[in-house]
Amino acid sequence: MTAGQLLRTEPSAQPQRVRHSTPPAALQADIVPSYPPPESDGDESWVWSQIKAEARRDADAEPALASFLYATVLSHASLDRSLAFHLANKLCSSTLLSTLLYDLFVASLAEHPSVRAAAVADLIAARSRDPACAGFAHCLLNYKGFLAVQAHRVAHVLWAQGRRALALALQSRVAEVFAVDIHPAATVGRGILLDHATGVVVGETAVVGDNVSILHHVTLGGTGKAVGDRHPKIGDGVLIGAGATVLGNVRIGAGAKVGAGSVVLIDVPPRSTAVGNPARLIGGKKGEEVMPGESMDHTSFIQQWSDYII
Amino acid sequence: MTAGQLLRTEPSAQPQRVRHSTPPAALQADIVPSYPPPESDGDESWVWSQIKAEARRDADAEPALASFLYATVLSHASLDRSLAFHLANKLCSSTLLSTLLYDLFVASLAEHPSVRAAAVADLIAARSRDPACAGFAHCLLNYKGFLAVQAHRVAHVLWAQGRRALALALQSRVAEVFAVDIHPAATVGRGILLDHATGVVVGETAVVGDNVSILHHVTLGGTGKAVGDRHPKIGDGVLIGAGATVLGNVRIGAGAKVGAGSVVLIDVPPRSTAVGNPARLIGGKKGEEVMPGESMDHTSFIQQWSDYII
Amino acid sequence: MTAGQLLRTEPSAQPQRVRHSTPPAALQADIVPSYPPPESDGDESWVWSQIKAEARRDADAEPALASFLYATVLSHASLDRSLAFHLANKLCSSTLLSTLLYDLFVASLAEHPSVRAAAVADLIAARSRDPACAGFAHCLLNYKGFLAVQAHRVAHVLWAQGRRALALALQSRVAEVFAVDIHPAATVGRGILLDHATGVVVGETAVVGDNVSILHHVTLGGTGKAVGDRHPKIGDGVLIGAGATVLGNVRIGAGAKVGAGSVVLIDVPPRSTAVGNPARLIGGKKGEEVMPGESMDHTSFIQQWSDYII
Amino acid sequence: MTAGQLLRTEPSAQPQRVRHSTPPAALQADIVPSYPPPESDGDESWVWSQIKAEARRDADAEPALASFLYATVLSHASLDRSLAFHLANKLCSSTLLSTLLYDLFVASLAEHPSVRAAAVADLIAARSRDPACAGFAHCLLNYKGFLAVQAHRVAHVLWAQGRRALALALQSRVAEVFAVDIHPAATVGRGILLDHATGVVVGETAVVGDNVSILHHVTLGGTGKAVGDRHPKIGDGVLIGAGATVLGNVRIGAGAKVGAGSVVLIDVPPRSTAVGNPARLIGGKKGEEVMPGESMDHTSFIQQWSDYII
Amino acid sequence: MTAGQLLRTEPSAQPQRVRHSTPPAALQADIVPSYPPPESDGDESWVWSQIKAEARRDADAEPALASFLYATVLSHASLDRSLAFHLANKLCSSTLLSTLLYDLFVASLAEHPSVRAAAVADLIAARSRDPACAGFAHCLLNYKGFLAVQAHRVAHVLWAQGRRALALALQSRVAEVFAVDIHPAATVGRGILLDHATGVVVGETAVVGDNVSILHHVTLGGTGKAVGDRHPKIGDGVLIGAGATVLGNVRIGAGAKVGAGSVVLIDVPPRSTAVGNPARLIGGKKGEEVMPGESMDHTSFIQQWSDYII
Amino acid sequence: MTAGQLLRTEPSAQPQRVRHSTPPAALQADIVPSYPPPESDGDESWVWSQIKAEARRDADAEPALASFLYATVLSHASLDRSLAFHLANKLCSSTLLSTLLYDLFVASLAEHPSVRAAAVADLIAARSRDPACAGFAHCLLNYKGFLAVQAHRVAHVLWAQGRRALALALQSRVAEVFAVDIHPAATVGRGILLDHATGVVVGETAVVGDNVSILHHVTLGGTGKAVGDRHPKIGDGVLIGAGATVLGNVRIGAGAKVGAGSVVLIDVPPRSTAVGNPARLIGGKKGEEVMPGESMDHTSFIQQWSDYII
Repeated sequence: MTAGQLLRTEPSAQPQRVRHSTPPAALQADIVPSYPPPESDGDESWVWSQIKAEARRDADAEPALASFLYATVLSHASLDRSLAFHLANKLCSSTLLSTLLYDLFVASLAEHPSVRAAAVADLIAARSRDPACAGFAHCLLNYKGFLAVQAHRVAHVLWAQGRRALALALQSRVAEVFAVDIHPAATVGRGILLDHATGVVVGETAVVGDNVSILHHVTLGGTGKAVGDRHPKIGDGVLIGAGATVLGNVRIGAGAKVGAGSVVLIDVPPRSTAVGNPARLIGGKKGEEVMPGESMDHTSFIQQWSDYII
Repeated sequence: MTAGQLLRTEPSAQPQRVRHSTPPAALQADIVPSYPPPESDGDESWVWSQIKAEARRDADAEPALASFLYATVLSHASLDRSLAFHLANKLCSSTLLSTLLYDLFVASLAEHPSVRAAAVADLIAARSRDPACAGFAHCLLNYKGFLAVQAHRVAHVLWAQGRRALALALQSRVAEVFAVDIHPAATVGRGILLDHATGVVVGETAVVGDNVSILHHVTLGGTGKAVGDRHPKIGDGVLIGAGATVLGNVRIGAGAKVGAGSVVLIDVPPRSTAVGNPARLIGGKKGEEVMPGESMDHTSFIQQWSDYII
Repeated sequence: MTAGQLLRTEPSAQPQRVRHSTPPAALQADIVPSYPPPESDGDESWVWSQIKAEARRDADAEPALASFLYATVLSHASLDRSLAFHLANKLCSSTLLSTLLYDLFVASLAEHPSVRAAAVADLIAARSRDPACAGFAHCLLNYKGFLAVQAHRVAHVLWAQGRRALALALQSRVAEVFAVDIHPAATVGRGILLDHATGVVVGETAVVGDNVSILHHVTLGGTGKAVGDRHPKIGDGVLIGAGATVLGNVRIGAGAKVGAGSVVLIDVPPRSTAVGNPARLIGGKKGEEVMPGESMDHTSFIQQWSDYII
Repeated sequence: MTAGQLLRTEPSAQPQRVRHSTPPAALQADIVPSYPPPESDGDESWVWSQIKAEARRDADAEPALASFLYATVLSHASLDRSLAFHLANKLCSSTLLSTLLYDLFVASLAEHPSVRAAAVADLIAARSRDPACAGFAHCLLNYKGFLAVQAHRVAHVLWAQGRRALALALQSRVAEVFAVDIHPAATVGRGILLDHATGVVVGETAVVGDNVSILHHVTLGGTGKAVGDRHPKIGDGVLIGAGATVLGNVRIGAGAKVGAGSVVLIDVPPRSTAVGNPARLIGGKKGEEVMPGESMDHTSFIQQWSDYII
Repeated sequence: MTAGQLLRTEPSAQPQRVRHSTPPAALQADIVPSYPPPESDGDESWVWSQIKAEARRDADAEPALASFLYATVLSHASLDRSLAFHLANKLCSSTLLSTLLYDLFVASLAEHPSVRAAAVADLIAARSRDPACAGFAHCLLNYKGFLAVQAHRVAHVLWAQGRRALALALQSRVAEVFAVDIHPAATVGRGILLDHATGVVVGETAVVGDNVSILHHVTLGGTGKAVGDRHPKIGDGVLIGAGATVLGNVRIGAGAKVGAGSVVLIDVPPRSTAVGNPARLIGGKKGEEVMPGESMDHTSFIQQWSDYII
Repeated sequence: MTAGQLLRTEPSAQPQRVRHSTPPAALQADIVPSYPPPESDGDESWVWSQIKAEARRDADAEPALASFLYATVLSHASLDRSLAFHLANKLCSSTLLSTLLYDLFVASLAEHPSVRAAAVADLIAARSRDPACAGFAHCLLNYKGFLAVQAHRVAHVLWAQGRRALALALQSRVAEVFAVDIHPAATVGRGILLDHATGVVVGETAVVGDNVSILHHVTLGGTGKAVGDRHPKIGDGVLIGAGATVLGNVRIGAGAKVGAGSVVLIDVPPRSTAVGNPARLIGGKKGEEVMPGESMDHTSFIQQWSDYII
């Protein structure tokens, strides 16, 4: 997961800091461990214990959901088994059996700790940034953007191994089932939030950095006239609003914002903002501490722009 | 279904009036009762009898569809059973069985007559407003916007009962199967038409009034920077064009129009029109009798605006 | 397939020319025949032999995919059988069985050589125009836009035969499974590329010419205020960018371009370009040899416009 | 359930006595109520509470089974809902949907308390008589003989209502899924144990009394030469050994035994024993207190016979 | 279908005669044509018209079954299409798709009129001989013995074509789904009734003549010590009772009877009877007009034998 | 797999000898290695290489089966993976998902080499003893007796680990799907052939030795009057004919034969034969070298007996 290294301006330690300063809404105190994780725990085991506590709470409270929660979460020994099971049953079809996909996901997650770590970072991202996120289990079970990104990471691994036909078949199933179309060659960082996710398209040579938040209907597309490296490069901490279209091998610098509905054909410098169709730049505030991809503030700048241009 | 009461400017009797003045295209006279329903019938039983007549006509004419029509419509004793069956078989998955969902929908529809009545109002809305709607059965069976809204209403009931995990699971299945993502806490009125529906996103604190028409790819989203009440409030009779994005806790007044592709970050007064990215107001005509959400005229105002701004 | 005859400016021989001038990336030389097809072969048998060679290569290289490839491609005697099988298994549901759909597709494709020929033209279009297309088999198996268009063609045939209930049921399944909503009455030409495809909506009276390329989230919609002939007419060789919305009975002339995110309410003359919300015309270059629907250059004109308006 | 009234020699109170004198092996004392049920409970609610306690214990101990147990038992409000769910998911097929069958079973069990009571009696019979029965839940979930008999009772109700096509379709599904073929017109009592059950065949005019135990491969068949009333009448408390074939309108008196592998073409008096091919009578002991159908002693008589004839 | 020619003693015209002399119970006179078929009709078209009339009657009377009846019978243009559909949906599995099987059955039935004719003869056999047979549709839809034999005939055709792996796979599915295990190399005549059918086993070199009736649990097995031609040869019109085991390359002559539960290791002359374990011959009546395989009288001889040996 | 140690009279080396002396019919020489396996190979890897060669040959020759063969055999890295996949897809249900079962089988087979070795011995047994066995792949894919025994071995392991609820659930699925009902507590040796298998029942305290052959409809049952150790003990190399019923805690000595249709209630000494209902002993030949469970000669003794008693 070395996506967008050239585009990063923030030290890699920041995501942890931001996460700790904005803890997710607490679960019931009596059934879950305290937040943040104890020093002795890694993020993965801590998040997994949280997910199981949430699932157990929900299974107890809601008999109609208990079977689903046991099958998908509580019967599994680890997060990667649970994720592999869930993805396999979501993406399987009459010609691509769940057992085959399960095997594939189990093996890929076991062999690539970085893919597991990225999944954990994505769970924390959703929990920290999305006010509608009711818990880690909610994201794991119900966020099609989360699931699409995890399946993409496995497809990306396959692509890198030269198993291209399988990678493309996986992309196709994700595009059908989740309406999220990420080319397996695209490089995607960690701490990614695809909120709502319907209609997201990410092209073959696109690069997405860490801690990026992308709303639904966002396109990171080619211009159609080029071959080779022809898709956007999205820096760390970028926020891209709903329905935005970014086309061509342009750079969206770290901490930049792209307004909802914008059509971006130009580079956007770090920490600046692009809005409109076609998008123009409307500057940014110096000294901002928080990355927009993490704060999810994706309209304040448009307001500024509105003020500015009217 | 108390959605958007503050936003209403029209007496609640209007939907009936509008409906009667724009009757759906007649079925073959020999097999269906006359329109509007006889005084002695409620809308629900009348619409159900229409649906059965249409399904029987189609089953007779099209053997390849007869099995589907009998399973989904003609074997059922009432509209809510038919709807529960249809939704259960659409939304089920390998871990969320159709029998479980069927039970849930049957119980919810039986206990909440207002949910059934809203479904009937939605059927009449589609039939009255959408020129491509071939009949009530067509809408019931084939409109994923209609089905998504009905499933949302059940999820909303569950949410209100504190069964949040189940409500969120339902939202997730609807988002996957129909590509319509409505948070179960969102309040949605009756007489709703989600036309084409792909990609519609409605946030947690959004309120949608009665007789609203929403095209595909419409977002009623948050601004990302706020918690709490952070989504749009859509008044009665509003029409929102394809691809429009309405963000933040703004008010779209009763009878207003939002142009296709607009990005709306501001309040829109009743009976006025907002267009563009970012959207600006272009006034409205006094004395209009018909609500745009019902007439579906969603470009005339843009024409005016085009005239205005060029 | 007489779509858009009034809108055509190019001789029907052109698709072949364009295809020949931009050959798809070569398969491994040792297992596939040379390109273009030998004089003695028709396109259909040649494309089918290519697909089988690609599928065999992938089945040999990737055991996890072999079962899928044999079931979907290699066990079939012809392209139309393979396509019928694939569509049937994609579009089937618990109430619309795969065997029924298979029967329907086999019969329709057998009786309508023009539908088969259009499918072949679409495969060649994807292979020629989309740099991310890894082969004919990739398109056949994985492109939901391709599959949606083929299912639409069968629905269109059914609609023309008066089997409207079945045609609408098919449209509905396509809209659910592929998130592509094409009214069965709409007329669609050949050599069509729906790239990514999520969210494409094409209305009842729309006409789409030959060799048209349409990106995802594109709407060819009505204005809502009209009945009867109320949807766009798209000429041959047109390119419509991602997220564009074309509304009303307007004409997009042959070889025209519509920019990504544009909202088009006006006629666009042949070989000219429309961009923006609302879209305005920004002229076009005389003497262009290549149709944009085929070259897929869908941002150069926006650049021009950007230059123009800033 | 008036089966076999002419054949009864025991007062109807006996089954309860026998059951109480041979209590099922106790569950863990800390999680289940004491046996027999308290005076205030009916058998149905007591058995249901036992089943839930057993299922909860197993779900806690065995995560891999928890999903199944929640879906089938623990998410349901009553025994008849659980049974209806389980049968529907066992017997459904691609053309007979689980939701349809669930509806049918729920309605039949709700309307016929005697069918529910017979199911409870069968559960108690299995628990009391079969040493391999690990609990009520074990029988409910895993005994195909039990499930086949419950489905038969619903088919019998349908047959009596004149819904013969549906009753025969149900018989057919039971014959396929459980390899138990009971004609829906056959009358079957309560407290029935079909142990192992594979290959049991019961003809149209057969009557089976209460507290009968029937091993696998048992045929209660016609002679082929007769029409009308042509199948065996089995009295209360009869035990029929594995592979026995009883043919024609013969009477097997209350408390009689039929040896394994016997071919019975003659009446068997009450409390006597028939063995061999063709079967002959070998008398019986006077003053036996316990009915063989309840004690399951199905070889002692053969031993006697062996002694006798060698 | 030249099975058992050496074993035949009856002219081939007899089945028709027997059938005509024992007409099936009449359907409601107003919806079905008279019996026997008019001179102008072949058996196939007449039986098919009967099946459709029965299915239509049942679909009208029983809404819960209408979907099944339309899918399986009423949506099809011919008996072989209906049968292919029904078999494909019965025998399919997650790794052997219904569409593949449907293709196979459609093709086999189309190419082999004798297989279709044999199916029609089997339907007439069940209708004529089994008092519990409620109609042709009942047999087609619900008799697993009927369905197993039809699938065997297709497997036999495949075996004869050298497609042995596919034939064996089909045998295996039939053995699992219907618990009927007929080796694809076995030769089976026409007018076959497998009544109840569970557990029937027919070995590789067995031959079964025309108009044979075989009850459940019947084995036509090898002796285990031989290779090559090692299974029974069953003559025309033979009746084999429930649970009978016929082992080795023995001949059961035309019109012979084998008693229920018998173990037959010796040749049985035409029109004679074998009973017991091990079976002995008990002669037969001269001048019998009716073949036991058609009259289904399978105990009268045992009675004689009982008289004889006691 | 220490079953029946007290009952063994043959040195454990014999099965190998017998197998080597009766090699399976050769595959095509050009695609398979020679028999027996080279010294350097274990049986498991050699059998697996044979299975893959057979599957590849069949996939090449039969396109309609290729998908099945790749999914079930050729896409897997080892025999135990293939077996786990096949069993999981056979035994799964709507409430017991294939992915869960796959996990279970993979883990059990990986942890218990003796279970894998027993499966290999069973494959060799079928190939050596059953003249109808077309190859190892034929047995692995199509023999429900083979599959039932493998699933039983996993259930037996679970039972021994105290996971009784899961073991019983597995038994139940095997009883439904394969009509083979083996209690998970029963002890079964290696080199087992369940030929045809329908209706086999093996009770809780039964023990089956090595190299035993059991035909269909065989019962190893209790007498019903006992608790505790109450089922038969079957010695090494025993052959039990079709439909035989062995009841009670009796001993069938090593190398003994039980005739088809026999009802055995007494001990049978080693190398002797029991036939009839009730079974009597008819001695045996001294000096026989070959065990009947391996030679499959299961009628010669009956012939002797017939001679003897008539």
